[in-house]
Order: sequence, then structure tokens, then C-alpha cells
Amino acid sequence: MVPHLITALTGPINELEQRILESMPAIERWFRLEWMEHTPPFYTSVDLRNAGFKLAPVDTDLFPEGFNHLTPQMLPLAVQAAMAAIEKICPEAKNLLLVPDNRCGNTFYLQHLQQMVQIFTQAGLNVRLGSLDPALEAPKRVALPDGSELEVEPLQRVRTRAGLKDFDPCTILLNNDLRGGVPRSLQNLHEQYLLPPLHAAWGVRRKSRHFESYEEVAKKFAKLLGMDPWLINPLHGRCGEVDADTAAGLDCVQAQADAVLAKVRRKFKEYGINEKPFVVVKADAGSRGAGVMTVRDARDIDATRLQRALARPEGVPGVTEVLIQEGVPTYERINEAVAEPVVCMIDRYVVGGYYRVHASRGSDESLNLPGSSYVPLAFAESHHLPHRGAKPGASAPNRFYMYGVIGRLAMLAAAYELEATDPDAEVYD
Amino acid sequence: MVPHLITALTGPINELEQRILESMPAIERWFRLEWMEHTPPFYTSVDLRNAGFKLAPVDTDLFPEGFNHLTPQMLPLAVQAAMAAIEKICPEAKNLLLVPDNRCGNTFYLQHLQQMVQIFTQAGLNVRLGSLDPALEAPKRVALPDGSELEVEPLQRVRTRAGLKDFDPCTILLNNDLRGGVPRSLQNLHEQYLLPPLHAAWGVRRKSRHFESYEEVAKKFAKLLGMDPWLINPLHGRCGEVDADTAAGLDCVQAQADAVLAKVRRKFKEYGINEKPFVVVKADAGSRGAGVMTVRDARDIDATRLQRALARPEGVPGVTEVLIQEGVPTYERINEAVAEPVVCMIDRYVVGGYYRVHASRGSDESLNLPGSSYVPLAFAESHHLPHRGAKPGASAPNRFYMYGVIGRLAMLAAAYELEATDPDAEVYD
Repeated sequence: MVPHLITALTGPINELEQRILESMPAIERWFRLEWMEHTPPFYTSVDLRNAGFKLAPVDTDLFPEGFNHLTPQMLPLAVQAAMAAIEKICPEAKNLLLVPDNRCGNTFYLQHLQQMVQIFTQAGLNVRLGSLDPALEAPKRVALPDGSELEVEPLQRVRTRAGLKDFDPCTILLNNDLRGGVPRSLQNLHEQYLLPPLHAAWGVRRKSRHFESYEEVAKKFAKLLGMDPWLINPLHGRCGEVDADTAAGLDCVQAQADAVLAKVRRKFKEYGINEKPFVVVKADAGSRGAGVMTVRDARDIDATRLQRALARPEGVPGVTEVLIQEGVPTYERINEAVAEPVVCMIDRYVVGGYYRVHASRGSDESLNLPGSSYVPLAFAESHHLPHRGAKPGASAPNRFYMYGVIGRLAMLAAAYELEATDPDAEVYD
Repeated sequence: MVPHLITALTGPINELEQRILESMPAIERWFRLEWMEHTPPFYTSVDLRNAGFKLAPVDTDLFPEGFNHLTPQMLPLAVQAAMAAIEKICPEAKNLLLVPDNRCGNTFYLQHLQQMVQIFTQAGLNVRLGSLDPALEAPKRVALPDGSELEVEPLQRVRTRAGLKDFDPCTILLNNDLRGGVPRSLQNLHEQYLLPPLHAAWGVRRKSRHFESYEEVAKKFAKLLGMDPWLINPLHGRCGEVDADTAAGLDCVQAQADAVLAKVRRKFKEYGINEKPFVVVKADAGSRGAGVMTVRDARDIDATRLQRALARPEGVPGVTEVLIQEGVPTYERINEAVAEPVVCMIDRYVVGGYYRVHASRGSDESLNLPGSSYVPLAFAESHHLPHRGAKPGASAPNRFYMYGVIGRLAMLAAAYELEATDPDAEVYD
């Protein structure tokens, strides 16, 4: 089934699509050259928003989920990409330890884990699941809807190495974003490959740092294509110290929101976009707090709304950093429901994607709130096979190719970001 | 459509399939380690024969054709593999020159070329076709059945580089096996990547040398799986000097045929295979002569039959080398027609496969004779996604995975072979 794309058939997004298609060999070469200098994250998923007049990433996940939504037709691509990834990192590897999130009660997440196990097994590894959950004391079998089972075992630290009972992995693949900090069992592992690296964990990573790198990438890419980087880049501002309890720092948030809104307004005028700009205000550390505040006027941000947006789990410090990001409405619809494309990547390769669809949310709201339900819809055709002759906006493979390009730009930005934030990096002056 | 596989559901081939599936992670790791030491050919196709009791490659083509038979579902894999291949060889490449065979009147071959152009364009290269045909003096547009056109241009040599008018490629990809020798325009190219290398051309390459390497690979692999290498290796003998005109050397061919038949007879006895062994006698240089002689008794080889099997184009010297190879019957059938699986690879990756099907030929005959027609049938499911729980012999993906493994063994053998025959290789004592 090809999703019915109802983004307008005219205007900048189709210009972008057309320019991207025309420049395909140049774009692919540009990525090749970038990957000579920069190491892609092991795996990534990127949430995109297609506003019709612009297309931008809004979230880059280095501990991706949702691989269960990839269609069976796309799985071979994932296996092949996993082979390439493993070969570069640890070609002699026999064993891979996958460290899941602790939410092993969630059926969707279990199906994602099952898919990951399948992909890496078929890439030639013995895969086992090692949990960080302190409540897990012995191996546990968890049932899946299809009748199969997954075994989750307690992760063990034995001197310098992490593993399981009778299982010593070469590579440890984190699918747990370590939002609560890095447990002792994963600290100071120098003999094994730990991927993604610990500084990619949400306890350390900052969205604003990622979007700073993304801006750099978007500018380079826009130069290659001779276009305005704003068409693929969401503007942003940042406040360094906001108190989630007292709302101290509110004035900074208001000023940054005002500044971003003013810039967006100018862009809207330049492109003749007849809409009211908005910004989203959220905690800069990824997993901190669930709130995302949508703001059309800086004066609407008051202490109460800010406190709610920065609400946080017990025990997390009150003072935090805040990201103020240009709101990119999503104008893709599937059966009248708001849809947000998600691009899935392993190593430097796009291996598929799906739509996060939410019938009861608006085009300016987050579709990824905890507890929100969504309908996954796999990209039906391959991002690898654009139809170069097709009319702009009319071809699903072309749309998916464009999404794959923007997804890879965000992944490249994550590579820049992780290099810049690497605490062990050697500094050259 | 899943081809209906009618190979027997019991006996050694299913044991092999089962053992290969059980050992999947170990096999993939073994390939990874081999690719650390050896460079895969740029692209390869391998003809297999599935005898029910054994499965073996019978031809390894380093200038493959038939990529037009890959299904649209498999194309993304080919694009991704091509990206990986290019990235290793010449990541900064903008331009790829594809050198076709001179048979540009053949519609199937033109469709193959069109597919190659599509694959490498989508991998991020500007692809143009440069012909060695001395009769081609100006660019020529050739029509394809789907209404599109391919442009073939005369290849030009300008001092140290080969290319086209206004087109200077980084990589030159040969799809012409140079059976007539290496033209001056391709000699001494030291600034560009010429792939496959010139010593892979059929003017130089010998089948017996390939199967010598294959035997080495098959033995290593069989050791890994704890099985008899004969189950995947066709035995062979060789005669160095046979005169195609006078049949001098007939006695050597008879003796070798006798020796191979005796060995096969012993193996048949060991496995309780109630069949009459046969050997095929053919020219050792790949493209030399079209004849393939099927022999069940060495005494049946007489001067007339030998001369016919070694028939050759005008101007080719009469004295030649001869390969005597264990005949592997093909017992796969599709709609009652004899079928031979062909595995297609780019770099180290299997990107798909198809069946060469011939209704009017027997199970002990070549299905790839010039002028013979055949019906291509793409592998319907992915070789990347074996079903590990399925009953041996009952699952098409498992069968395709096994074919992909044996295809890769032949490709690895080609890597060994090209290293051993490289005239520019440095010799370490």
C-alpha cells in the first residue's frame, strides 16, 4: 500500500524534492566524502516533519526503536547494512550483547527487540539480551504476540568486561538511552566496543548541541544544492539555566522564543507563507520531562506553563537547560490523520521508515508523547529507487528518497555532534 | 511467486541446508574474516547446480550479465551494495565508465546494461557507456523495449587515461570479458581503477585455476561445518595441451575423464547414490568454443567429439587447455523444466538471483549455450532472511540462503584466484 500523500503538489517542498532528485549523484557523492571524514552512529532513527513549505528533522534518536515497523521487504537491507556496520567495528565478532531498555512489558518494544535480534543474527552474530534492570536477578523468558519468546538475562560485570553468564561479547549495543545515568557495570569498559558511546546517552546529550551540528550540516548541504538552508533547518534558541520549580529563567525563554518567532516570521514573509509561526519549548536533555509547549506568542509563556513543560521524574535536579525550537507543522496526512515520517538507519544506510500517525492530534503538536498511541505505517516503497522522470510531489519513492536524504543529514549531524562532545577526543590546536 | 522446488525432501542436500542454517552466524563470521584477508571481485554471478545429493558452482562469471532479472524488490540491495563497493574503491568518484560487451543488439543484454546504469546512478555516480567496438565511431542511441534509450559512445584513450568525449571517469567497470584480448585503449592505465582487473579477462583466465581455488575454499568451509567438501565441490582434471584440429592430446583427456569418473563413482558408492556418474569436457579458457561434451565413459571420447567440443572462432590458436569436470546434474525443476540457479553479487553481498530455465534440455546438459533460449525466474524471496525453524527443504528463503552461501564461496574462490594470478602482485617468500 502506498500511503496517500496529500502535501500540496506545488511550492517549495516540491522544488526541494525536484532539486534533490536532480542532484542525486552529487548528493550521494557528497555523503561518501563526508563519511570519509566522519563516523556514522551505529544506528539512528530520525523524526521528520513535512510542512509543505519546509522539511526538517525534529528528533534524532541514537537508541532507536520502532524497527519492528520495517516491512519484511526492507529487512534484507537492514541485514546487509548490519553486516557492513559489524565488519567495520569488530569483524572478528562472534557475540553481540544487546542492552534493552527496561520497559520490557511493552509489546511494541519487545517486537522491536525481536527484530533487532533477527537482524543481527542474520548478519552473523550470536545475539543475547543483557538487562540493566536491577530487579532482574535471573534469566527471564518474555512472551511475544506471535507465540515466540525472548530471553532477557541480567547483565554481569566481571572485572574489566561486561557480559552474561557464559557469554563474552566483543560488542555491546545499547538500546537503552541511560537517561538515569551510566550504571557502574558499563563504566570504564576499555576492552569491548560499547555502542553508541556513553556520551550519546540522554543523561549527557543536549538537543541544542545536536541542532547546532545540524545547522552546520544543513548549510553545507544547502550550498551544494544552491538553496536556502532554512528549507531543511528548524531554527532554535537555548536557555542555559531554567528552574523547573520556581520558573526562574522565564525571561530568557520568552526572549529566545521572541527571537526565533521573529526570524521565522521574516522567512514566512520572504516565501509568502500565510501562516502564524510557532515555537516549541522543551527540556534540552532528551528524556527529561515529557512536556512540549507550543507557543505562538512569547507572552503566552508563563511560569505555570513552563513548569508543566519541564515536569520531571522524581529525584532529577530542578535547574535545567531549555530548547526553544521553530515549530514545523506536519502537513502529511494518511486517511485524514496527522502523520510524521520516521527514517530508520543502520550505519550510513537508510534501511526503511514508517509513519507515526495520530488521529487525535493537531499538525503543530508532538506525536511522540509518552502514552500517546500511534499507528505505524511502513514506507511502502524503497528510498533507494527514486523515479527520476516522475512529476514532483507525485511519486512515493521520490518522497521517500527525499526523506532518506534529510534523515541522513540528521545522522551526519549526530556524527559531528558526537565527535565534538567526545570526552576522550584528542584536541588538535 | 515462489518457485516450486522439487528437489527431494530427504538426503544430503537437506542435511547440507540444515547444517548451513544451524551454522549461520558462524558462516557469516567466517566470511567476514575471509574478507579481511581477501578482496572480493567488484561483481560476480555464479551458476549453481543442485543435484539433490550435492550442490556446486559450475561457472563463476566476473563480467556478469542477467542483472535485469533481479526483481524490483531486490534492487535496493544492489544499490546499497554498489554504494559500499564504490566507497571502498574510489569514494571521491563522480564518474563511472561502464564498458559493455559488443553485443548491443541483444535486448536482454541491453536491459542488463540499463539495470547496471540504474544501480550505479542511484549509488551516486554519473554513469556512461563506453564501447570498445571499433565499428562505433560516434555516439549511438539504442532503443529498449520499454521505450527508453541507452546511449553508447566510443571509448577514447587520451594519453594516460581512458574515457569518453568530455567524460573523465575515476573508475572503469568492464562488462566485456575481453575474450579477444586486451585492446590498446585499456592497456597501461595506472591512474584509473580498471575493474575487474585485466587478468580476470577470459583471454587469460582459466577455469581449472578457478576450481583449484574453489577446492581450497570448499575444504576450509567444509572443515568449519564438519562435512565432506565433495558435497559442494565438483571434482576436476585438466589437460595442458590439446590440439583442437588434430585432437592430439586425446589420450590425456581420456585418462583424466577416467580418473574423475572413478573418484565420483567411489563417492556415489559412499553415499548410496544410485546414478551413473558423468563428466563434462570443455575448453579451459572461458569463452573459447561453445562446445560442452557430456561423457559417461572415457572410451566414448573420440577425436571427432573432442574436436567439436573445442570448436573455436576464426583466428584462435588450435592448441588449447581442456577442463574435465565432474558433471553435477541439476534436479531443480520449475513447471517440469530443468532449472539452474544463478546467484548475483556486488562486492561481498548477494543482491539476488534467478533461475535459468530450459524446457528442452536434460538435467546433465549445459543450460548456458550460446543461442539457447531460457526463461529467467527471479528468486522470489530474500536470501538474507532464512527461516531458522522451517523444515529442511521446505522453505524457499532457506534454499536461497544456501544458494547465496555457495555463490559466495565461489566468489571467494575468485578472490583467491585473482590474487594468485595477479601479474603485478608482490611476491613474499
